[in-house]
Amino acid sequence: MSKITGLRCTSCKRVYSPDSGLFTCPVCGPYKGTLEVLYDYDAIGKKFNRKNWIVPELPGHYRYIKLLPFEDTKLIPPLWVGYTPLIKSEFFEKKYHIKGLYLKDDTREPTLSYKDRASSIAAIKAKEANANGIIVASTGNAASSMAGFGASIGMPVYVLAPRSIPEGKLLQLLLFNAKVILIDGNYDTSFDLSLKVAEKTGLYLRSTAVNPYLSEGKKTAAFEIAEQLEYNIPSYVFVPVGDGCIIESVYKGFKELKELGFIEKIPHMVGVQGEKSAPLLRAYENNTDEIEFIENPETVADSINVGVPRDGVKALKSVKESNGFFIGVSDEEILEAISELAKYTGIFTEPAAGAAFAGFKKAIKENRIPHDATCVILLTGNGLKDPRAIKRIAKKDVPIVAKDDLDSIVDLIRF
Amino acid sequence: MSKITGLRCTSCKRVYSPDSGLFTCPVCGPYKGTLEVLYDYDAIGKKFNRKNWIVPELPGHYRYIKLLPFEDTKLIPPLWVGYTPLIKSEFFEKKYHIKGLYLKDDTREPTLSYKDRASSIAAIKAKEANANGIIVASTGNAASSMAGFGASIGMPVYVLAPRSIPEGKLLQLLLFNAKVILIDGNYDTSFDLSLKVAEKTGLYLRSTAVNPYLSEGKKTAAFEIAEQLEYNIPSYVFVPVGDGCIIESVYKGFKELKELGFIEKIPHMVGVQGEKSAPLLRAYENNTDEIEFIENPETVADSINVGVPRDGVKALKSVKESNGFFIGVSDEEILEAISELAKYTGIFTEPAAGAAFAGFKKAIKENRIPHDATCVILLTGNGLKDPRAIKRIAKKDVPIVAKDDLDSIVDLIRF
Repeated sequence: MSKITGLRCTSCKRVYSPDSGLFTCPVCGPYKGTLEVLYDYDAIGKKFNRKNWIVPELPGHYRYIKLLPFEDTKLIPPLWVGYTPLIKSEFFEKKYHIKGLYLKDDTREPTLSYKDRASSIAAIKAKEANANGIIVASTGNAASSMAGFGASIGMPVYVLAPRSIPEGKLLQLLLFNAKVILIDGNYDTSFDLSLKVAEKTGLYLRSTAVNPYLSEGKKTAAFEIAEQLEYNIPSYVFVPVGDGCIIESVYKGFKELKELGFIEKIPHMVGVQGEKSAPLLRAYENNTDEIEFIENPETVADSINVGVPRDGVKALKSVKESNGFFIGVSDEEILEAISELAKYTGIFTEPAAGAAFAGFKKAIKENRIPHDATCVILLTGNGLKDPRAIKRIAKKDVPIVAKDDLDSIVDLIRF
Repeated sequence: MSKITGLRCTSCKRVYSPDSGLFTCPVCGPYKGTLEVLYDYDAIGKKFNRKNWIVPELPGHYRYIKLLPFEDTKLIPPLWVGYTPLIKSEFFEKKYHIKGLYLKDDTREPTLSYKDRASSIAAIKAKEANANGIIVASTGNAASSMAGFGASIGMPVYVLAPRSIPEGKLLQLLLFNAKVILIDGNYDTSFDLSLKVAEKTGLYLRSTAVNPYLSEGKKTAAFEIAEQLEYNIPSYVFVPVGDGCIIESVYKGFKELKELGFIEKIPHMVGVQGEKSAPLLRAYENNTDEIEFIENPETVADSINVGVPRDGVKALKSVKESNGFFIGVSDEEILEAISELAKYTGIFTEPAAGAAFAGFKKAIKENRIPHDATCVILLTGNGLKDPRAIKRIAKKDVPIVAKDDLDSIVDLIRF
């Protein structure tokens, strides 16, 4: 595929051929040696401009096919993904005295999470490679998302998950016909096994960070934000950070648009972590590239409850290069943020997305964002994926009225 | 508003002024006298054609503003709605030997159900009327949808619900900040009270069927199907039917396009009911317009578990006029259909949407659909709204493997 020129190691910068079949750098290993997909930006930049690089006839985020790692549109899965709403909230602009506030609503992806962006590309690459199936180690959104896309394209999806996986999540996987194998160990064990199984079986690997093409799916929110704001690039983008894949991918998306000359600046990337599951925040605060892992990370936001961030190196780089920052939020702040979003926008998010909004609120409170800034907050998943969250935040005082007591009802409404 | 010429009673055909403020015909009453919004089709048809009647700059289904009951685009709620994917399923086309099979994916509406189409218009009309709030009697999707849109536009939403409302649904309402009043009675009591409370308080009424503008929101799926199929109108549209509002609205949408000369034929509308909650199926089979109510309707599909269909008259008419039919499905068929949809498309639907697909399967099996037909199935809601359904259908035999037993995993995958 001529538009891709190479796969570059994040750490040692060695560039490998896209035909090498490599997923990570053999020198730096699967943790530090995650790869980055490089395109022929010169050629693309010469051929296209802001308007004509988009192919609006293609559904969802495939409209950005010029910067996606496939050519054959016949590979596009039937399940539409991406090109989600960017919602301007005048209410929050007023409340927080900020010039621009936009919510990128990925609660409305096909399996209701941001991970669908990555899974859609994994599905395409697996089909392109004529794989017999896809393997993924995950306890959550990545697995159910991949299972959904496997169903959509008719390819078996094998999931390695810790034995402790919550029943609800397991059932969702089974519903999408995923072949689940429970491992008598933790997430890290499943993750390491997935690499070995992929090698032994030839199954296409969709575990987080170790497949460079996943980023290619996750970066498209940057393209959408740019297009939806008519290339008036926001000042800040708030992203919940666990493994760090989403923040580095969105940063890559903006960087590519700049490389092509379509935009002039890149937003400051703000990484939001749970304050007790914040290895990247710690490294950022200590001004080091050495990420210290956390053994027992804790946050109500499952999807970012990560002590060993698989894409930490890239994530840290994205925040630093863009002059952004990391910020930590408590469980209380996350739950309060979910409730506030629901109450004033009608969007019910999962806790990780609530964390992103909580990070914004905290940054405003701490005067880290100027009032003339425009902020975008990535809402990465739907709250109904884990309805237990509602129980923790909804108030429960509800009046009960006798069946013919019209007067009491009118009194309760009180005009 | 000059584009609307009148409100016509479904039964006696009297036409009232759009400025009358009437919601139902005062002569025929709120059950038989539901009103239909009429536009100046002559003027619209002369001014516009298939292409230029659409305003693609407006988000979601507001692109069809020329046939929507408002003018001022500033009234559009921030929460995007409609213009959902129409997914072609080649897999099901082959499996069921049918020329065309499309899934209209309303599992991806903002509050995850088709009701958002109606609530969005209710929100606009309430704002236009400077109402102090909105009242709705509902136990399910209509209430949570209205609550979401109330949150989006900052207008209080009052919900009258039977005391027996499931906890999950109640919590969702509270999360969106709805003012819930529980009534010590059943749904019908709440419904009747909502009419009286609206009259006494001036709250804007969003109870099903008794507000003609709700249909205006629900009809837009017809416009989308027409546009998405480039005006190659399908032969059949399968719709789950409880109160009957969706099927009559979608029929109205197609009828309007025909009236404007944009399409030449109207699809056969197929109404799918739970076989033990099928008053409209019964009336259809007995070839009568007299709908006999069912006292204790029963179906696993909550949203169509209706014994007294509030929009029954219009629904029956839509099916008859379009030469469609009604069909009944069992709980087992519904659950099997949900599972099949998830397994082969990656879309997890609520039981009512499963019922629509089950109806299609049954119609094929009974040779009621020719093989050269094109069918569209309305998937009206997301399965995660009622996750209990998963438990009933997902298989649960999952292998567990020791943490370093790579060989067993490879054996389980077995190529």
